[in-house]
Amino acid sequence: MYYDDIEIGTTVRVGSYRIDAGDIVSYAKRWDPLPVHVDEQAAKQTVFGGLTASGSHTVAIRTLLLHRVPIQDGVIAAGGWDEVRFHKPVRPGDELWLEVTWIEKRPSASKPDRGIVTGLMKLLNQDGDVVLSHRDVIVMRIRQSV
Amino acid sequence: MYYDDIEIGTTVRVGSYRIDAGDIVSYAKRWDPLPVHVDEQAAKQTVFGGLTASGSHTVAIRTLLLHRVPIQDGVIAAGGWDEVRFHKPVRPGDELWLEVTWIEKRPSASKPDRGIVTGLMKLLNQDGDVVLSHRDVIVMRIRQSV
Repeated sequence: MYYDDIEIGTTVRVGSYRIDAGDIVSYAKRWDPLPVHVDEQAAKQTVFGGLTASGSHTVAIRTLLLHRVPIQDGVIAAGGWDEVRFHKPVRPGDELWLEVTWIEKRPSASKPDRGIVTGLMKLLNQDGDVVLSHRDVIVMRIRQSV
Repeated sequence: MYYDDIEIGTTVRVGSYRIDAGDIVSYAKRWDPLPVHVDEQAAKQTVFGGLTASGSHTVAIRTLLLHRVPIQDGVIAAGGWDEVRFHKPVRPGDELWLEVTWIEKRPSASKPDRGIVTGLMKLLNQDGDVVLSHRDVIVMRIRQSV
């Protein structure tokens, strides 16, 4: 998919990714070793009552699932993420889906070969609860006539 | 550090984290297998001219470095990230520092044991260039009188 193929208002849903305790702990030991992410016993004493995935890990799962939306050939660069919100904890055994709704697109003001696309990203669990949401701004190629 | 210890306007700098090509490729193979992150030859053909770290990886390094700011005992939950911007590519050999400036704090309106703190986060490379910035909203414990 190129910039040209992004249709505003459409939603695509891809998945799933199943997360387990080993996955949560091994990611967090490397990147975010808080007790609530790496220590099952300590996690029980937190407001979450058990192990939860690191926010960085949840974002990484979003990124991995985004590869199932066939935009890779069109992506030039990441423009940024806005309003990243962690609505619910991600717990061992959760099965996660990604919903992408294209909400905005505009051609680049300076470079005719590219445009800027905004997707509303929602990561949902098996109960349909949104666990993560954000807006993702992506710089994408415009198909060139030959 | 608890909510009480956060002084608005102060900046703390921690680091460093040195990233190499193996680190970039192994993270991205797992979480973000775009050619620009996993394939040195293909990466040369992109606008970046070589391997760059995945945005998720850059954010994970930010999270890891944040553990050197002693707020962990005070953290209750993540409130969210705003205006996440990837200003410059992170490349093999880069050495990264984290600068945190506390820009806002307020007690919770509903729960007297906690407050909401906002930190401006900047990840900088060895040349002093900002590679990543965002605002991080953190829910923190307020010290209770006994």
